[in-house]
Amino acid sequence: METNIAGSEKHAKHVLCVGAAVLDTLFRVREMPHGEGKVLPYDMMQIAEGMASSAAYAVCRMGGRASLWAAVGDDETGRRILNDLSESGIDTSGVTIVEGAQSALSTILVDDKGERLIVPFYDHKLHRNKRDCTASDIAAFDAVLVDVRWPELAFDVLSVAREIGKPAILDGDVASVDTLEMLVPAASHVIFSEPAARLLAGAERVADMLPVLHLRYPETFIAVTAGAAGCHWIEPGDATLHFEHAMRINAIDTLAAGDIFHGTFALAVAEGMPSRAAIRLSSAAAALKCTIFGGRLGAPSRSEALRALQAWRKQA
Amino acid sequence: METNIAGSEKHAKHVLCVGAAVLDTLFRVREMPHGEGKVLPYDMMQIAEGMASSAAYAVCRMGGRASLWAAVGDDETGRRILNDLSESGIDTSGVTIVEGAQSALSTILVDDKGERLIVPFYDHKLHRNKRDCTASDIAAFDAVLVDVRWPELAFDVLSVAREIGKPAILDGDVASVDTLEMLVPAASHVIFSEPAARLLAGAERVADMLPVLHLRYPETFIAVTAGAAGCHWIEPGDATLHFEHAMRINAIDTLAAGDIFHGTFALAVAEGMPSRAAIRLSSAAAALKCTIFGGRLGAPSRSEALRALQAWRKQA
Repeated sequence: METNIAGSEKHAKHVLCVGAAVLDTLFRVREMPHGEGKVLPYDMMQIAEGMASSAAYAVCRMGGRASLWAAVGDDETGRRILNDLSESGIDTSGVTIVEGAQSALSTILVDDKGERLIVPFYDHKLHRNKRDCTASDIAAFDAVLVDVRWPELAFDVLSVAREIGKPAILDGDVASVDTLEMLVPAASHVIFSEPAARLLAGAERVADMLPVLHLRYPETFIAVTAGAAGCHWIEPGDATLHFEHAMRINAIDTLAAGDIFHGTFALAVAEGMPSRAAIRLSSAAAALKCTIFGGRLGAPSRSEALRALQAWRKQA
Repeated sequence: METNIAGSEKHAKHVLCVGAAVLDTLFRVREMPHGEGKVLPYDMMQIAEGMASSAAYAVCRMGGRASLWAAVGDDETGRRILNDLSESGIDTSGVTIVEGAQSALSTILVDDKGERLIVPFYDHKLHRNKRDCTASDIAAFDAVLVDVRWPELAFDVLSVAREIGKPAILDGDVASVDTLEMLVPAASHVIFSEPAARLLAGAERVADMLPVLHLRYPETFIAVTAGAAGCHWIEPGDATLHFEHAMRINAIDTLAAGDIFHGTFALAVAEGMPSRAAIRLSSAAAALKCTIFGGRLGAPSRSEALRALQAWRKQA
């Protein structure tokens, strides 16, 4: 067996997730709108999520413990985000409530082909200041995972984690090149989305991006996820290109799939799981999520992910 | 002067508004989306509104008193709708809270040309049952105004109001022909939107619709509003076609403009204002609303509407 099963709550590894917390309103529609008019949704759901928040949820679903550092406004949406995430098992005591800022919210339309239209609203006042981050703040965690939403804090968290020898994982999604160039060198592990890796590496094919990124960051674990097209990665100090296929699924809702991958991966790293096993488990968790409508709520438990992975590998 | 100024709170007329209550999320975008992808809004606002609710707000802004009969779910959105409307001065003590139903919510995109894309979510469980409506419930009000959202209750309210000799006003917006044919005969006044009047009359031009509708409902005050194209109407028992131009404005956000018209008109009728003056005031209130982003919140006060009307008529 390549994977560890998380033990009791007491021995469960604890991951700090830093970044986005958003109230999403998901509408299911038959077809995407084109221009003005009216679209009647046949289903609706509201969920607190966002990159770091959904990743934290995946940590919980996989049997780990998750704490969230994010920022919300001092408003009803903010209170709702905090309630919803707490009820999902995430420790939100480290979330900053910013007076005079509006909480982030998004409307997302998902059509019957699984395509998405996203309208995200984000108040820059939310992340104008950052909270403190000392070694003793980070010492309690077994790994940290940051997204690109609150770059200044993400940089501090990654830096402090590395100083005290903890895995420091970056969800390398699309952001300004400046932000990515600040955060990538601070991380021990970077999981890039394909467009973000392309932005930074300047290459078209994933197989060409990774060697470029490895040359620039030779001591970093670097992966590039490409959804249904699988996941490529390079280990620190070794230019060998590794690859894992993604499970074939019928995608209903890909929202938060990447975040579920990142959360699962961060917990796996915190548990000391070997890279290939960690990538397989994360990839299976992300794939299963896509088969269920409802953003992060589709994240599977560890046993669900392991069972699906086993069934799929037997078939292949 | 053709218009009465509402007196003190004590003498202010009291309008019962019956129908929709929705939490709207408004996003301002540069351009409408076409198909899947991401649209970044540059402004966002959340407001509790909906036809009857926005009309009730107009009644308050015009110096009247407004009560709302609507239905919300037993959820956070419902509590937010109630708080927001109460804080706006509307008496929401008659709102029904429906266990197990989801409150109505909409996302609305408004682009820089003032065009709108609406995604309204509505749970049919909200209006499956209706509340009681007796003569003593209605006796306290000086007029009732209903929309097409809760047709069974709207019918009762119109019927009871007419029985006890109160103005019974219908916001005749697009609905099934069955719903319109049930509600129109129960009303003393109907303000149709152009598409709804077309649906019922089967004529293309407003000037042709009104005589058809007057023949069918000869004892009803019938108006057809056509936005910037003005308002036509026919008085009960007299086939003369009347018309008022709309004020010329630069439309930024037409959301809730019709509702502001209806609320103002209902209050004017409750005050005994002559028809032409009531139409002018309502039309001015609706026009001014369109110059401000933010749905019903753009509704002017009575003095603002009268001032704009005077300035415009001097110019014309």
